[in-house]
Amino acid sequence: MLEVCLLGTGGTVPLPNRWLTSCLLRWKGHSLLVDCGEGTQIALHQHGYSCRHIDTILLTHFHADHTAGLPGLLLTMAKSERTEPVTIYGPKGLEEILRGIMTVARYVPFEIRFREIREREYTFQIDDLKVCAFAVRHSVPCFGYAFDLARGRKFDVTKAEKLNLPKKYWGLLQKEQTVEYEGKTYTPDMVLGEERKGIRLVYTTDTRPVSYIREHAVKADLLIAEGMYGDPEKQEKAEYNKHMTMQESAAIAASAGVKELWFTHYSPSMPNPGIYLDDVKMIFPNAAAASDGQKKELSFED
Amino acid sequence: MLEVCLLGTGGTVPLPNRWLTSCLLRWKGHSLLVDCGEGTQIALHQHGYSCRHIDTILLTHFHADHTAGLPGLLLTMAKSERTEPVTIYGPKGLEEILRGIMTVARYVPFEIRFREIREREYTFQIDDLKVCAFAVRHSVPCFGYAFDLARGRKFDVTKAEKLNLPKKYWGLLQKEQTVEYEGKTYTPDMVLGEERKGIRLVYTTDTRPVSYIREHAVKADLLIAEGMYGDPEKQEKAEYNKHMTMQESAAIAASAGVKELWFTHYSPSMPNPGIYLDDVKMIFPNAAAASDGQKKELSFED
Repeated sequence: MLEVCLLGTGGTVPLPNRWLTSCLLRWKGHSLLVDCGEGTQIALHQHGYSCRHIDTILLTHFHADHTAGLPGLLLTMAKSERTEPVTIYGPKGLEEILRGIMTVARYVPFEIRFREIREREYTFQIDDLKVCAFAVRHSVPCFGYAFDLARGRKFDVTKAEKLNLPKKYWGLLQKEQTVEYEGKTYTPDMVLGEERKGIRLVYTTDTRPVSYIREHAVKADLLIAEGMYGDPEKQEKAEYNKHMTMQESAAIAASAGVKELWFTHYSPSMPNPGIYLDDVKMIFPNAAAASDGQKKELSFED
Repeated sequence: MLEVCLLGTGGTVPLPNRWLTSCLLRWKGHSLLVDCGEGTQIALHQHGYSCRHIDTILLTHFHADHTAGLPGLLLTMAKSERTEPVTIYGPKGLEEILRGIMTVARYVPFEIRFREIREREYTFQIDDLKVCAFAVRHSVPCFGYAFDLARGRKFDVTKAEKLNLPKKYWGLLQKEQTVEYEGKTYTPDMVLGEERKGIRLVYTTDTRPVSYIREHAVKADLLIAEGMYGDPEKQEKAEYNKHMTMQESAAIAASAGVKELWFTHYSPSMPNPGIYLDDVKMIFPNAAAASDGQKKELSFED
């Protein structure tokens, strides 16, 4: 199970009734935050989360509306007596940016590890969650993130019992390991069923609609994508400032065959993103104009 | 007239229902901001102010809860199409701090001027407002600020008429300038009354109670001072972390003979600062536990 909460849905400027876009993922005791704008720590608090447990922070890019909340968040984590390290991922230049913004938060009692993503695509693992950062197209280097929670193959107890293998070895087979016992070899295939679909979530803001997004979003359970504007008259502005409209995100969702699409990163000029939804649903029916605190538990299919 | 608004009253950590401590002063078209923590730009918006007109920012010190909102504020000012320069005052190290936190807000279309205060006391003028920064005692270099709006002496029309000086010269005398006319010398004293009390506001947070605060606050119309804790059991903690309790601020207010005292910069551990007010009023009766958005127009006495 992967819990996802959109802590905020605003772009550019934080508003009294709309926090800046950021997203919290939780699974198996892990908390992962995507972006941290001014006020993100307050949004966490407001939506009932503790910042103490955030072990990973992914930055899409370095614009202030996605990063300026980091010093405050890390200091509040320090006050919560966190001692475990925090790992931050972001585009090239991450070290310099962190050194800069942390001039007002010099004393954090836990280790801050960082990994600058210099590749166009970079995949890494956090416990059983596979994370893929993929370059998108904004006015500065920017990444989208695809998250995959793999689902183990089904263990067939009847088949296992027929093997005459002591039960203490079953767990190894379930973990896809081969077992040698009394001169015989037991492989996972002997007791495990077909490959099963896991959970896929794709998150991308601050970009023009590039093919990489569609490629990563294929059959995703949830695509969270930028809906900076809904008014077709803002198309030119979106192109000029390298943002994505609701219509463009919906087209990606449709062609990638995702299950569900949430818009986020709304322009401050757009107080009611929902008014464009009827139009957008003509392109992709299962689209939602997400609001702050929108939450979902993504589960494996039956 | 000097308008003062406490945009926030929280210390250390911004909370969903309490912005970080900062204060807006407005007079004669000027807007001056004291401190800018995470969320201060949202508080400005929420309380109905535009950040576009802020021409001066005073920083008490560089801890994140007083500074981390600067990149966001300056970027939002940029989006509001401000072109006039902004001047920032703060302790020694200001240039390095600004360079650091502005790594996520590199492109601001107006000039940012700054003045590092390296003196223990430094007085400067913004139009007709005299500002005095005075060093206080915190864990890092920190300043309190005293604001004086001078009141001109009263112009005595009856006396002026008797001088046989053309009316076009009256304004110069009112501005305390001497006039030479047809071989005669006219001095301001000929038409101006006694010196008159102006408006004095003193603002100080993040400090132990030092004598300088009392000296600057003598007969102030309003003292805005730290009330980090109200519970006497937190006295030791206040001393250790170099903060001031409500009782200590009240004692300063009483000995300086200020008219009114507002507490601010409350610990996040203190959700209801008002519960300590009965005790504190035994020390200084005209004390108030200010809340976010608390506002007053300080006017010259009749």
